[in-house]
Amino acid sequence: MILHQYIRTSASLFSPPNSCLAAAVLSQLFSGLFSLVFAAKMATAGKVIKCKAAVAWGPKQPLVIEEVEVAPPQANEVRIKIVATSLCRSDMYYLSESEEDTFPVILGHEAAGIVESVGPGVTEIQPGDKVIPVFLSQCKECRFCKSPKTNQCDKTWPLIRLPGMALPDSRITCKGKKVQQLAGTSTFSEYTVVRQMAVAKIDPTAPLDKVCLISCGVSTGYGAAVNTAKVEPGSTCAVFGLGAIGLAAVMGCKAAGAKRIIAVDINPEKFEKAKVFGATEFVNPNDHNKPISQVLVEMTDGGVDYSLECIGNVEIMCSALESCVKGWGVSVIIGWTNLRDISTRPIQLIAGRKWTGSLFGGFKSRDGVPEMVKAYLDKKLKLDEFITHNMTLDQVNDAIELMKQGKCIRTVLSVSPQ
Amino acid sequence: MILHQYIRTSASLFSPPNSCLAAAVLSQLFSGLFSLVFAAKMATAGKVIKCKAAVAWGPKQPLVIEEVEVAPPQANEVRIKIVATSLCRSDMYYLSESEEDTFPVILGHEAAGIVESVGPGVTEIQPGDKVIPVFLSQCKECRFCKSPKTNQCDKTWPLIRLPGMALPDSRITCKGKKVQQLAGTSTFSEYTVVRQMAVAKIDPTAPLDKVCLISCGVSTGYGAAVNTAKVEPGSTCAVFGLGAIGLAAVMGCKAAGAKRIIAVDINPEKFEKAKVFGATEFVNPNDHNKPISQVLVEMTDGGVDYSLECIGNVEIMCSALESCVKGWGVSVIIGWTNLRDISTRPIQLIAGRKWTGSLFGGFKSRDGVPEMVKAYLDKKLKLDEFITHNMTLDQVNDAIELMKQGKCIRTVLSVSPQ
Ligand SMILES: NC(=O)c1ccc[n+]([C@@H]2O[C@H](COP(=O)([O-])OP(=O)(O)OC[C@H]3O[C@@H](n4cnc5c(N)ncnc54)[C@H](O)[C@@H]3O)[C@@H](O)[C@H]2O)c1
Ligand SMILES: NC(=O)c1ccc[n+]([C@@H]2O[C@H](COP(=O)([O-])OP(=O)(O)OC[C@H]3O[C@@H](n4cnc5c(N)ncnc54)[C@H](O)[C@@H]3O)[C@@H](O)[C@H]2O)c1
Ligand SMILES: [Zn+2]
Ligand SMILES: [Zn+2]
Ligand SMILES: [Zn+2]
Ligand SMILES: [Zn+2]
Repeated sequence: MILHQYIRTSASLFSPPNSCLAAAVLSQLFSGLFSLVFAAKMATAGKVIKCKAAVAWGPKQPLVIEEVEVAPPQANEVRIKIVATSLCRSDMYYLSESEEDTFPVILGHEAAGIVESVGPGVTEIQPGDKVIPVFLSQCKECRFCKSPKTNQCDKTWPLIRLPGMALPDSRITCKGKKVQQLAGTSTFSEYTVVRQMAVAKIDPTAPLDKVCLISCGVSTGYGAAVNTAKVEPGSTCAVFGLGAIGLAAVMGCKAAGAKRIIAVDINPEKFEKAKVFGATEFVNPNDHNKPISQVLVEMTDGGVDYSLECIGNVEIMCSALESCVKGWGVSVIIGWTNLRDISTRPIQLIAGRKWTGSLFGGFKSRDGVPEMVKAYLDKKLKLDEFITHNMTLDQVNDAIELMKQGKCIRTVLSVSPQ
Repeated sequence: MILHQYIRTSASLFSPPNSCLAAAVLSQLFSGLFSLVFAAKMATAGKVIKCKAAVAWGPKQPLVIEEVEVAPPQANEVRIKIVATSLCRSDMYYLSESEEDTFPVILGHEAAGIVESVGPGVTEIQPGDKVIPVFLSQCKECRFCKSPKTNQCDKTWPLIRLPGMALPDSRITCKGKKVQQLAGTSTFSEYTVVRQMAVAKIDPTAPLDKVCLISCGVSTGYGAAVNTAKVEPGSTCAVFGLGAIGLAAVMGCKAAGAKRIIAVDINPEKFEKAKVFGATEFVNPNDHNKPISQVLVEMTDGGVDYSLECIGNVEIMCSALESCVKGWGVSVIIGWTNLRDISTRPIQLIAGRKWTGSLFGGFKSRDGVPEMVKAYLDKKLKLDEFITHNMTLDQVNDAIELMKQGKCIRTVLSVSPQ
């Protein structure tokens, strides 16, 4: 399967898109793996690739489609042709909250693609493999990777850069300038270079324009419910924010057997979708003139067992905690923001609530992604229902606008032709 | 054993303290349980008891030894002769942070005594039983009592009274005024009335002037490590604040098999004691000119596995969280205060830390106390080492002064003669 796929890809370098026959013929010609890899190497391997990418030149500015140079992968790195990428709210977080000196940057971290070439030392991945790059690495060697308690590999590139922290290295330049790679990914580019430890090899039959969602949003929300909150059967959950992350959290709560799933959003247009993923009740905070935590506590006779914040709003993070039942309520922060503190009275925790957070849904990235892809192929995980729009990379600013206006769940951008 | 104990007590009502012989003779005379209970009932049961108590008339004022009236126990209540009580920092919290309308109040919640009489419906406790009253009830019927996840019985009297909350009922009056009972206990009184659901019956051989510490401080600190943090063998812990609660937390960490136990206090006089309970390292924040969380992160190459705040200081609660290692660090708030919020950046939790709190060390009160008493009698739990001073109830203000000045760990006050 891998071989066939790869041939289709290579063939298209030489032939017009309609030449399926030519591809089939070529498929016969290149019969061994070795010759294939050799052929791939002949094309672009070891060379700088010039291609299109959406560059963010400064905070809060529209992205600009530019020609960029993508250097060959170095030791333990993989160069990937990005086939499909989607826009996640975290890209916008970076655009609005980052410091000047982190620009120019290429955003994008929710994607799927095909390996173009690999650097020295890469053993688990080959050119032609279908892969999903992840913002979270899994080096399999650090004490965090070795512990079953966490997915937070010590080699992950900083997601929130603290003052004084050096910028990680990048393989991409534009107009002679180094362009930063968001969290080591940068999928708003036809090609990108990612460390092998942050690349998951996936089932070659997986449709890349769907499984790209597993690269961040769906794994994050689903796993936050299943792995981090560890939702129990029969429990009552509240999910705050019904973007892709929140909807995936709803799906995770349902998969874990929750009895009541209360979906909270100020945009009531999201409620129909939430129902599709398993929400049983809907609350719009704007319909109430008391704090949302009080509304939930009253609805549930004391508070929910689990609450998940999927917005990135510090006030709601606190409301989510305070919506939990005393004694055992667990509140998980998933939304991103780094401008302000969360805060609450100590009694909220002394009363037995647990406050924690989740990164990539608690999945170890390289182990979890192929499993999530398999779950989708086995029809145990919904993905198609998240995709409200399909566009091309050129239209990335339109996709950003849609998300700003709350008019989409996920927009999938096609990047390089497969 | 219970009978003999009880006779000694009754006998002393009739005879001078040196009449051991008289007690022995009486012991022969009252030979059956029925007659004993009857005799006890004859004395004070059903009547108002006039006795001594330390009354707090207003916030931040010294306590005043007064004559109070203690009404007979009502349905499901137990009247207890308090033999020994110790002072816990929470009594002082109440004195300094409570609203005017919660006074007058009788403080004291860390004690042991002997049952004088019981109200209708009390089946598990009899006059003469040695008991420990607890600020936390265990009704055994509410959903919190029925869940193995928590000890936070729904019938517990409010420990932090929120505005608008009614004061719980009290059986004590002074000079014609109702006197509030702190958390339904009020052990700074020769007699008090406590609900059966908050009274633990203990081994009759237990020395009351030692096991009174199990009534709050020692169970709280020990359990916070063992039950709430669930400290694992080989782990690294930090305990902030080395009063009785913190020292008991150190003891709990050690019992759970922690490898490194870092004891933190601004009063270096506490370090010797901490060593006795198992601390392996000591840090005085005043010896450093960087944040204490940074000091601990550097000492432990990334942070501790567990941190326990045993002070009641919101800044330190946040430092304790931030001293934890990413991925799995657990921080437990034990200290009391309700004037200000705790706060931190969301990334602290998204990085995988867990923030929670502990009440009475996570022990279900009536189940846990007798086990802790047994552990002490079996020499598996230290208690004597916490007691730095012995005084009488009359000297309660001196005990408060000692604690304010950081000159004691626990002062045990003898209240009624046994
Ligand atoms: N922890 C992680 O690993 C991780 C990974 C990916 C994304 N994220 C974060 O998750 C969050 C959600 O991402 P998304 O892509 O689903 O975003 P999104 O913008 O598509 O969805 C956010 C939803 O929240 C709703 N909302 C906004 N303010 C609200 C309020 N005050 N009350 C109730 N609802 C409100 C919006 O209407 C919207 O439906 C973002 O902060 C993102 O950065 C975290
Ligand atoms: N959660 C519960 O169930 C529960 C039960 C009992 C007590 N408590 C609370 O536990 C806390 C401790 O009680 P205790 O009786 O041991 O008090 P304590 O006063 O005997 O001990 C507190 C210790 O903290 C130290 N300290 C003060 N400020 C400090 C700082 N900035 N940095 C480091 N150390 C500092 C003091 O020197 C002292 O040794 C109190 O807040 C009390 O109210 C909670
Ligand atoms: Zn994302
Ligand atoms: Zn790792
Ligand atoms: Zn106490
Ligand atoms: Zn109960």
